[in-house]
Amino acid sequence: MVVASVPSLPFDDRGLAYGDGLFETVLVRDGNAVLWEQHLSRLMLGCEVLDIPAPSRDQLDATLSRLGDGLQVLKLIYTRGSGGRGYAPPAKASPRLYWQATPFSPQQARWKQGVRIRLCHMSLARQPRLAGIKHMARLENVLARSEWHDPDIAEGLVTDGHGRVVEATAMNLFWLSSSQPMPCTPSLEHCGVLGTLRQVMLDAGELMIDELGVDELAGCQALWVGNSVQGLWPVVRLDDTEGRILGEWPITATHRHLQRLAHDHLGYPAI
Amino acid sequence: MVVASVPSLPFDDRGLAYGDGLFETVLVRDGNAVLWEQHLSRLMLGCEVLDIPAPSRDQLDATLSRLGDGLQVLKLIYTRGSGGRGYAPPAKASPRLYWQATPFSPQQARWKQGVRIRLCHMSLARQPRLAGIKHMARLENVLARSEWHDPDIAEGLVTDGHGRVVEATAMNLFWLSSSQPMPCTPSLEHCGVLGTLRQVMLDAGELMIDELGVDELAGCQALWVGNSVQGLWPVVRLDDTEGRILGEWPITATHRHLQRLAHDHLGYPAI
Repeated sequence: MVVASVPSLPFDDRGLAYGDGLFETVLVRDGNAVLWEQHLSRLMLGCEVLDIPAPSRDQLDATLSRLGDGLQVLKLIYTRGSGGRGYAPPAKASPRLYWQATPFSPQQARWKQGVRIRLCHMSLARQPRLAGIKHMARLENVLARSEWHDPDIAEGLVTDGHGRVVEATAMNLFWLSSSQPMPCTPSLEHCGVLGTLRQVMLDAGELMIDELGVDELAGCQALWVGNSVQGLWPVVRLDDTEGRILGEWPITATHRHLQRLAHDHLGYPAI
Repeated sequence: MVVASVPSLPFDDRGLAYGDGLFETVLVRDGNAVLWEQHLSRLMLGCEVLDIPAPSRDQLDATLSRLGDGLQVLKLIYTRGSGGRGYAPPAKASPRLYWQATPFSPQQARWKQGVRIRLCHMSLARQPRLAGIKHMARLENVLARSEWHDPDIAEGLVTDGHGRVVEATAMNLFWLSSSQPMPCTPSLEHCGVLGTLRQVMLDAGELMIDELGVDELAGCQALWVGNSVQGLWPVVRLDDTEGRILGEWPITATHRHLQRLAHDHLGYPAI
């Protein structure tokens, strides 16, 4: 059953007009939001960056109170609220919080067998002022995700147009290379979204920040994509933008190790 | 009186979720849309770029049929419609058209006395895949327009982060310099919106495409900002990002000449 807040919003909401708002996609287990503190921190960071008055903790916690048992995905949308014609934000904004929860099951086959991903043509523009936050102006992600329809391809890798990998269209990227002693993920200071799974793993010292060139991708010892809803997927095959194989990897203990650390944070099983 | 289509939209509309849609802001005089063909062309270009099924001409023309006499601004919003969670567009999209018309009066004092503008800190990221179209993912414009509250500052100039001027936050930019025989405007191939007033003037041979460095701005013979709703405003003072004067210009016959050409296209008076 889908549980939701008031399901419609007015024409003049700036979230609709300009993408002027933030969202969070949260895994909820038996009414408990997983990585809730990390989601709230990112939402608060977004409010600061966009200068939108922050929602109260009570208001956010209240979205969880009506959710029942089992696994669900809670999508929160927090917009600047109504505004007149024109880009200038209203002097006194009245933000709106919308939410919707839907039942969810993770794709366990992808945990076990790993996934095939591809490199996208679409690259993310470097815009440090908007990097990291989960704002609603996400056409770059939409265009990147539009590049393939093959259901066997689980994700697309996007670069920053300067030869650096950034993330997958809806997941963060992790790799192990010979140049660093532990799995790495990009800094996302120019573009990309600071995923909550990535964050909790960085905070736990399970990952470090590094850079990776597109040309170094195929030489990695291991590659993963993941987020706080789906968990961590080992990458077993990477294609280039034309569908040619760039790299293939058997799943090893290295993959399972990082997967176990990630799934511990999410309450998902080790594989 | 505000006249509008159904005033609310569902939670899962991708226009809200991701800025996955287009808009047009159209001057309507006595029920006739000014530069209607140019607005429709840009909307169709946007549909092509985003791969959204285009609306029919009849559907668009019908938005004008309920508008009464006098000047109004018609805002059209055209989204990809509903979609599931995730960036992938639905295989068969059912786009939604929303619109709202509000009475309008141009700011005639700005036509006559010109305006003061400022350079924005916020710069536009170069994203050629989204350049030109009037999509709804416009947080860069929102942040640029948030930089000042002084009502005496009419607009803000944004650059592309590579030292080139692009546009004003909600208007195009025009200048006359000693290096070209006629007024110029940037190409907008990397970022910015292809304004309809700019387009009709280019098509009429009243403007040419050129580049302008931020450091050359103050040396221009004349500077204007304008769009199809407000008309053309001569710039009499340009401030830098800290509010220091970069350039001042008396209004000359050169300003009035381009203004007359622009206003002819819009049915506005010469000044």
